[in-house]
Amino acid sequence: VRKDVAGYDIKSLLIGSEGTLGIITAAWLRLTPAPAAQIPVVGIYESIDRGVEAIEAALASGVVPAAVEYLQGSCIRHAPPPFSEAAGAEFIVICEAESAAERDALVEALGESALVPAADALWRWRGGVSLVVRAVKGEKLAEDIVVPLDRLGEAITGTLEIGERHGIEATSWGHAGDGNIHSTFLYDPRDGDETARAELAALDLFALARELGGSVSGEHGLGLLKRGQLLGQWSDAAVGAHEAIKHALDPKGLFNPGTKDPRPE
Amino acid sequence: VRKDVAGYDIKSLLIGSEGTLGIITAAWLRLTPAPAAQIPVVGIYESIDRGVEAIEAALASGVVPAAVEYLQGSCIRHAPPPFSEAAGAEFIVICEAESAAERDALVEALGESALVPAADALWRWRGGVSLVVRAVKGEKLAEDIVVPLDRLGEAITGTLEIGERHGIEATSWGHAGDGNIHSTFLYDPRDGDETARAELAALDLFALARELGGSVSGEHGLGLLKRGQLLGQWSDAAVGAHEAIKHALDPKGLFNPGTKDPRPE
Repeated sequence: VRKDVAGYDIKSLLIGSEGTLGIITAAWLRLTPAPAAQIPVVGIYESIDRGVEAIEAALASGVVPAAVEYLQGSCIRHAPPPFSEAAGAEFIVICEAESAAERDALVEALGESALVPAADALWRWRGGVSLVVRAVKGEKLAEDIVVPLDRLGEAITGTLEIGERHGIEATSWGHAGDGNIHSTFLYDPRDGDETARAELAALDLFALARELGGSVSGEHGLGLLKRGQLLGQWSDAAVGAHEAIKHALDPKGLFNPGTKDPRPE
Repeated sequence: VRKDVAGYDIKSLLIGSEGTLGIITAAWLRLTPAPAAQIPVVGIYESIDRGVEAIEAALASGVVPAAVEYLQGSCIRHAPPPFSEAAGAEFIVICEAESAAERDALVEALGESALVPAADALWRWRGGVSLVVRAVKGEKLAEDIVVPLDRLGEAITGTLEIGERHGIEATSWGHAGDGNIHSTFLYDPRDGDETARAELAALDLFALARELGGSVSGEHGLGLLKRGQLLGQWSDAAVGAHEAIKHALDPKGLFNPGTKDPRPE
């Protein structure tokens, strides 16, 4: 059934519980028709501030864009064509329109620098960013913090400051419309000292997300890697409620033990 | 934040829990722009079967209509203008399009009888249906069962059969696109026998919803009125999980006691 409010919304509780509350043995998927058009609109900016302003303008345009993505600094400089002409840029915003009217509104919102590239080339390029950035030093530590939309600029500049503090190259890209950013630290995995500094940078990043009123994970989840990071983010009561639900549905601790645990090991 | 997967989705668990898991003291609402156009497309049919076919055609049209509503039998006959010309009809389908292209696709799906009335008059009329139906005998018992979409026709004819069995006028209308129907029994509240028969009819209706693989509530919730109705719908394990979650978050049973309880009093 498409609607059911007879009991608690256990389906939503299970989604994203990372196997810790039960095992999903079957699922019905509801498919919706693809949009009639997918038109990327790109803005290229010389500073983070200008780029974040453009994101705010796009979100305030009255259009609900199908995507609002951004890329900052290093990940632009290391990128392949067709965005080589943007090599001097500090910030790129990518929105997606689903009609000509939406496209025009987004072109206006993104301002002078707005261009409308071919969709397939654009998304192929965007899809490769993570791999290109990893290739620069051999490895990267990419997180998925999320912050309130009005703190987006602080999260992006904060990422760079953390990298500088630890002497490690930092960049970020991500899902600006959701305040969900992939802050990333580039390191050489054969260099033990640099690897350790990348890990310390990630801890500082989690602290930054909490400080800005955000969360340590917007989409990847807690898993084992972020164990313990919720203690600073949540009140004791929230940690207790979380543990009580886990215990209620898995009293013997059989499901994916240790995963999504708010407390450190 | 707009996304947060650090912990369990406790927000969704709380939504619809009818005050039984905690008290919401503050909420942030996210507003989205209203659609640029809201165009109703109406189809009028002489039988339930024809009407349900039209609903299936609308849902298969490739358009995702903003609304797919229907009205059956009594509630059409008792309705005021502008739909008096449809007084002989057994079934009315109302879809809502958000563009001219969607409107044309829905007119085609709803077939020969499709018409495009003024939106404000149509929705004002639709909004009054519940009151008009109540006025016929003085009171009505309206439920909100939900069934899988391919069982919609059976739920609508089943509602009429239940009414006949109990010697009571029955009708239905509702949110066809969700399989969520307001099966309704009309009775005189001063007539104790008729009132009792309406209540028995409602119990049969819940059994019908379960039989069709549906649920006793698509949108109103369980409350106190439908206490015990989940025992036939859910497995013992599901009832146990539901009770375990309630106990985990409200061990002393302080929150809205008795509400949303799967077991009878």
